[in-house]
Amino acid sequence: MTLKLVIVGGGSSYTPEIIEGIIRRHDSFPVTEIVLVDVEMGKEKLEIIGKLALRMIEKANQSIKLSWTLDREKALENADFVSTQIRVGGLDSRAKDEQIPLSHGFIGQETNGAGGIFKAFRTIPVLMELAEDVHRICPDAWIINFTNPAGIVTEALLKHSAHKKVIGVCNIPYNMRHSTAEMLDAAPEDVKIEFVGMNHFVFGKKVYVKGIDRTADVLQKLVDGLDYSPANIVNLGWTKEFIDSLKLLPNPYHQYYFQTKDVLEKDLKAYEEHGIRAEVVQGLEESLFAIYKNPELREKPKELEKRGGAFYSEVACSLMDSIYNNREDIQTVNTLNNGAIPDLPDDAVIEVNCVITKHGPRPLTVGPLPHTVKGIIYQMKAFEELVIRASITGDYNDAYAAFVMNPLIADEKRSKAMLDELLEAHKTYLPQFFNSRGN
Amino acid sequence: MTLKLVIVGGGSSYTPEIIEGIIRRHDSFPVTEIVLVDVEMGKEKLEIIGKLALRMIEKANQSIKLSWTLDREKALENADFVSTQIRVGGLDSRAKDEQIPLSHGFIGQETNGAGGIFKAFRTIPVLMELAEDVHRICPDAWIINFTNPAGIVTEALLKHSAHKKVIGVCNIPYNMRHSTAEMLDAAPEDVKIEFVGMNHFVFGKKVYVKGIDRTADVLQKLVDGLDYSPANIVNLGWTKEFIDSLKLLPNPYHQYYFQTKDVLEKDLKAYEEHGIRAEVVQGLEESLFAIYKNPELREKPKELEKRGGAFYSEVACSLMDSIYNNREDIQTVNTLNNGAIPDLPDDAVIEVNCVITKHGPRPLTVGPLPHTVKGIIYQMKAFEELVIRASITGDYNDAYAAFVMNPLIADEKRSKAMLDELLEAHKTYLPQFFNSRGN
Amino acid sequence: MTLKLVIVGGGSSYTPEIIEGIIRRHDSFPVTEIVLVDVEMGKEKLEIIGKLALRMIEKANQSIKLSWTLDREKALENADFVSTQIRVGGLDSRAKDEQIPLSHGFIGQETNGAGGIFKAFRTIPVLMELAEDVHRICPDAWIINFTNPAGIVTEALLKHSAHKKVIGVCNIPYNMRHSTAEMLDAAPEDVKIEFVGMNHFVFGKKVYVKGIDRTADVLQKLVDGLDYSPANIVNLGWTKEFIDSLKLLPNPYHQYYFQTKDVLEKDLKAYEEHGIRAEVVQGLEESLFAIYKNPELREKPKELEKRGGAFYSEVACSLMDSIYNNREDIQTVNTLNNGAIPDLPDDAVIEVNCVITKHGPRPLTVGPLPHTVKGIIYQMKAFEELVIRASITGDYNDAYAAFVMNPLIADEKRSKAMLDELLEAHKTYLPQFFNSRGN
Amino acid sequence: MTLKLVIVGGGSSYTPEIIEGIIRRHDSFPVTEIVLVDVEMGKEKLEIIGKLALRMIEKANQSIKLSWTLDREKALENADFVSTQIRVGGLDSRAKDEQIPLSHGFIGQETNGAGGIFKAFRTIPVLMELAEDVHRICPDAWIINFTNPAGIVTEALLKHSAHKKVIGVCNIPYNMRHSTAEMLDAAPEDVKIEFVGMNHFVFGKKVYVKGIDRTADVLQKLVDGLDYSPANIVNLGWTKEFIDSLKLLPNPYHQYYFQTKDVLEKDLKAYEEHGIRAEVVQGLEESLFAIYKNPELREKPKELEKRGGAFYSEVACSLMDSIYNNREDIQTVNTLNNGAIPDLPDDAVIEVNCVITKHGPRPLTVGPLPHTVKGIIYQMKAFEELVIRASITGDYNDAYAAFVMNPLIADEKRSKAMLDELLEAHKTYLPQFFNSRGN
Repeated sequence: MTLKLVIVGGGSSYTPEIIEGIIRRHDSFPVTEIVLVDVEMGKEKLEIIGKLALRMIEKANQSIKLSWTLDREKALENADFVSTQIRVGGLDSRAKDEQIPLSHGFIGQETNGAGGIFKAFRTIPVLMELAEDVHRICPDAWIINFTNPAGIVTEALLKHSAHKKVIGVCNIPYNMRHSTAEMLDAAPEDVKIEFVGMNHFVFGKKVYVKGIDRTADVLQKLVDGLDYSPANIVNLGWTKEFIDSLKLLPNPYHQYYFQTKDVLEKDLKAYEEHGIRAEVVQGLEESLFAIYKNPELREKPKELEKRGGAFYSEVACSLMDSIYNNREDIQTVNTLNNGAIPDLPDDAVIEVNCVITKHGPRPLTVGPLPHTVKGIIYQMKAFEELVIRASITGDYNDAYAAFVMNPLIADEKRSKAMLDELLEAHKTYLPQFFNSRGN
Repeated sequence: MTLKLVIVGGGSSYTPEIIEGIIRRHDSFPVTEIVLVDVEMGKEKLEIIGKLALRMIEKANQSIKLSWTLDREKALENADFVSTQIRVGGLDSRAKDEQIPLSHGFIGQETNGAGGIFKAFRTIPVLMELAEDVHRICPDAWIINFTNPAGIVTEALLKHSAHKKVIGVCNIPYNMRHSTAEMLDAAPEDVKIEFVGMNHFVFGKKVYVKGIDRTADVLQKLVDGLDYSPANIVNLGWTKEFIDSLKLLPNPYHQYYFQTKDVLEKDLKAYEEHGIRAEVVQGLEESLFAIYKNPELREKPKELEKRGGAFYSEVACSLMDSIYNNREDIQTVNTLNNGAIPDLPDDAVIEVNCVITKHGPRPLTVGPLPHTVKGIIYQMKAFEELVIRASITGDYNDAYAAFVMNPLIADEKRSKAMLDELLEAHKTYLPQFFNSRGN
Repeated sequence: MTLKLVIVGGGSSYTPEIIEGIIRRHDSFPVTEIVLVDVEMGKEKLEIIGKLALRMIEKANQSIKLSWTLDREKALENADFVSTQIRVGGLDSRAKDEQIPLSHGFIGQETNGAGGIFKAFRTIPVLMELAEDVHRICPDAWIINFTNPAGIVTEALLKHSAHKKVIGVCNIPYNMRHSTAEMLDAAPEDVKIEFVGMNHFVFGKKVYVKGIDRTADVLQKLVDGLDYSPANIVNLGWTKEFIDSLKLLPNPYHQYYFQTKDVLEKDLKAYEEHGIRAEVVQGLEESLFAIYKNPELREKPKELEKRGGAFYSEVACSLMDSIYNNREDIQTVNTLNNGAIPDLPDDAVIEVNCVITKHGPRPLTVGPLPHTVKGIIYQMKAFEELVIRASITGDYNDAYAAFVMNPLIADEKRSKAMLDELLEAHKTYLPQFFNSRGN
Repeated sequence: MTLKLVIVGGGSSYTPEIIEGIIRRHDSFPVTEIVLVDVEMGKEKLEIIGKLALRMIEKANQSIKLSWTLDREKALENADFVSTQIRVGGLDSRAKDEQIPLSHGFIGQETNGAGGIFKAFRTIPVLMELAEDVHRICPDAWIINFTNPAGIVTEALLKHSAHKKVIGVCNIPYNMRHSTAEMLDAAPEDVKIEFVGMNHFVFGKKVYVKGIDRTADVLQKLVDGLDYSPANIVNLGWTKEFIDSLKLLPNPYHQYYFQTKDVLEKDLKAYEEHGIRAEVVQGLEESLFAIYKNPELREKPKELEKRGGAFYSEVACSLMDSIYNNREDIQTVNTLNNGAIPDLPDDAVIEVNCVITKHGPRPLTVGPLPHTVKGIIYQMKAFEELVIRASITGDYNDAYAAFVMNPLIADEKRSKAMLDELLEAHKTYLPQFFNSRGN
């Protein structure tokens, strides 16, 4: 019996992490073949990663067949799982997503605001194509989508592609659970958070340790200044009044929405001083690949942890293992709402605790949105629908609507210049916009 | 540390089963005290059961303190779990529920049609009082409601009592799972059925074995004539056309709704030949208690299995064990919908797969009702709401509405005589109706 | 400026009524051209009606151009309104709809139960074709659908045809308003009934006279035995208890659902004594056409009123007049729910008070379904959806589901024989079923 | 027969307008008695207005009995209509609502942002008391609520007071209809706008002239720079892209939400140059009352039109006339949603076209929210619910939640100082906050 994993975007600097996860779980999740796929532009990195991965497998002394290729269709044959971790346009595009909005006086961030919208615009068409390929070539395979904005991308695929076996993953819920465990001095496996919301806009509603409600304790810790922000975004802390009003655990990305001015000031200052985050990441990447090249290196190097997306591999490997083994354990993934949050559409993708089975994730009901955040969550979901619509239609008006309805933009006069500049900057990766406009 | 279980209706002939279950699970669910409670009318039976239970515990050599009493309030002190298995008015009342409708030319059945309505009318006020006692005396205790009509009763308590820790259980989903396992030659623990609907009106939507969809096979078996009806109700089989139209697993009680004429004819004939089911049960009960009295008997006797409610104990003990141990396993119970079936009200009680935790059951989303049965399920739920309303208000018009909106009655002209006769027959147990009418 | 009306099924015995209505309203609704269209089978009747209509117009001395034809496409050119009053299969088919179910022990009625389902099966495909023709040839024309089952047919067209300008009409709300006015000794134009439900399953929620709530008075009159049943269906009266429970005005067709046994007994007896209704109607029709032929007849004859569908013309002419003149008055029609009854789907067709404008009917909100009838109304709507689905797919299982989910059938064992006999009997008019089954 | 109108806040400078409206409509709406009511603080103005009103009635030579009083309970006896146009705390309070937010760098406006929230906080408790008085003293009277924020106030009364005959009115829809008529060179009575949303957040979805859809023409006019802003708020125009994206008519208040930065800059500049709007209004008021005092003045002076609220009287008088005469015409008012917009709660108050009857307004269904604005409308409604909750509870956390969830604030760090300053500034009028906090 075979168990084949295809990693799309295999040349990513994160790949060694997922390779390590596969190796570690070999007993319960016995992968027999891994194919790393990437595009022409990432050919060199792909080869570096491929060779490192081979050395890692060799060291682990496991019989996993590993190869790398630019031929995606070939790679997909007989695949059981397809993980995606792509970055359309690479770090250059990310740099533009961060820089252009900032230069217009708006938040410039990889997955939020105008930058996040454009990341979706570039990514969705590419992953739509992948999903159609998967549906044709290996229709029983699960797509495990790491690619950001993970929730929006997953909703786009589930709504608009023929392939319905798509699950989105993110490390934020994992981080929140682990940080909360630390706050409470509990084992992470004993901690459960009831989440409500969407990817990068999820709140924690209740925290249980071994089934006992510890929410109040965690909220107090947050007021006391403990936090669980990952390395890659700001961390300005929360006011007591905010936490007391919501009685919910915010996630770090909520800072963009409730501390917009402070974050913007800080980002503008940081930009002047250090340049944008994408450039920092670019530097990190270069040194990582320098390390990866070392033929003596036969394991995931410590330096990788400095990169933001820690635990992605853990999240993805756990998920694939539970599907494969029909474990029926509870994991937090991005999947169809289907009534879990009655206020949101049944076909919306939410980030929610699910029982993971061989036939996919089954959400646990969350119940109505908490009254304090129901408006903003609903609006963000409606905004996401606008982004998906524009990603598919390539219609300028649809894109404009997404801009003015985004809470971090919400400016019908200033949107035009910023939107036009971003469209021009990312032109190469936005065929849907430029073909439909007759250019 | 103590773990106290109170069994309300402890004099029931089912009690030895639950005692056996407790004994068997002692390692993982270490009950330290059991109190059997009953009412004056059941005093003698209570003592017989109590003594048998003591002998069973003694034989098992376990340190469980067991006692019996008519003083409910005292019994509830420090309780962790309160299970209910009462029969207000006893088998005499059941006999009237079966006989009177039949004599009017309608289905006479314990939990369906006019009989089921009156069972609810008698039961809900008594369990409302219990719930208020629990809320006052042992507010952290879970009420595990066995008492039929289990779904309606559970919804009444969750809507109208202050105590919100109430879970309803029934053996039908358990039976369906086990019968299905047998059909498929699979281990019951490997079989999962996705249920949709309410207690005694639940359908099986999908059958999975180790996560693999086997629904089509089970439907074929049903067409081939295999069935899973319990001993206590009719079993007329299903037509190929019905199964092909629905593509769902009906439960045995659906025969009352889709084979009404045949069931009625059969029941009328059986009534003429053997009398009603309640009388048969009465005979069974008498011989059971004769056996229970035997001081040599130190275990649950084989004869108990002839009684209809097999596996109730298994269902209840599994549930309490999983709550106690925060097992997060999946069980099928009656709890608040909360969006699991978006077409039904959030505060409706449905029979649904739940993750069982220390803080209660968390339903898995079911999604929209299947199009073929959405009408009848919605109507049955609306009918149940009418029953609950009338049970609480004691208003004659509310009761009349429940009668004419029940699919097994649905007769605005013939309802009056039947309703009036049932009200008179059960007068002693219906204070809400007779006080409110000024009698 | 022209104003052209096409009457599809122009050979119907009802046509003189609509012609009379058009003549009477000529000042405000100045029709310039009428074309009567019918099928080959109705050619002779069409000519009789055409000639009578010509004489009526001549007598009224109006400049309306009237013609008749079998060429529907030609007739539709430049039409402004298309009214439909067809009977696929004629009275022969109706006779089968009434007789076959009765012979199986079920209600046999033109628009309810198995007969109503088959009327839908025969009618929907024919009107779908008409709607597509209208959409292609005269896309701005309104289809005013008289054809029964009017609600189901209208929903089928609005859901499945490209033409969205379709309104269904029925005389039941009109009758209820006029009978109520009579009960209250008020002018009909001063009476408003708030309706809730669907065609032939509509309830009156509130009765206002000049804006004053008179509901209680009307309910009392109903209890006292006054009623408003049209000539063509039974009239068994309502019990005080039923009216007191519902606090709603039932419509005459509700007798089939809440007095099923009595109606069935009565219909079976009447069938034995006088044959079925369709045969009575056949006789009426023959004598009507004999009268129509009389070249001296230059107006609608009194005898027409004995036919069941009185006031249809009034209802249709008022509607067309208000659309044409953008009157913004309130009329009760069958149109998309769109939230008027939040419990029902937005795309369901309901019978509801609407403001009538040039751009169509705009429903007034009704609010949530009354708690007593919400179950049965929801179920009937879900049943209607099954009928529509089967009408379109021609799938045997879909038809079977409609049968077992109809409250007047609800018998999974006895449905097969009745369904099969009806399919065979109506074979000529059910291409969708026989092609899809490979016959 | 009597017809009595009570004007609460009768000392308002707007009162002469409503008096003029009453006089003008005397034939169809024959008011027999008017009582002007005000509070101690407004005593002097009340007398000036009362005397002017007397002179106006005398000039019109009508038999309307007019009086003024501070005794509200006495005034309410036998009232048929109670109109409210109060300003709790007067223009001084308004000045603080405008000034304090501006000084914190946020929009300072009478009915939007922090200022609007505080206007609600001051007004709701006062009108709750009025509603309870009305319910006790003249339970059949309609409350016609002019008082801003009119939608929020009306929802608060309908949700939390016993009196359910409450309708909110605003001149924005009236203005939009009249301005649109002007744009299209049509008579205002021929123009209908389908509105969607809430008071001060309403969009025009469709514009019909005599039933013909003219929406596209109006949108083009808006792009061309025509607008319909009232005198009292900014008018910055709309970009072509915004109008093209939404395909809806915004209302002038939408500028605060989609041109926040520009409005804020402009307001800050205006504040520096001319002071705040409240001070301008204060000046206008003073000169108005100087004119009103003139014993020769016997009609509404032209100068009143410079005040912002033009047409309020027209709106209110039309509404009362249609209720009184059961006109069944269509007017745009604030009333319970009841499904008109299925996405919003049934008990939300929306601004919607209604048929006006003696038994109240009946909304026409609007249908699902347009996809571009559904998020922001839903959020604004959820925000309004937070404001109402805080107005009733007086809970600091509830107020904080309203602040951070308002799109014009949305700043969890900067909210505290602004909220605290506003609470302190308005302390006298916020007993619910200061009692509940134990001050």
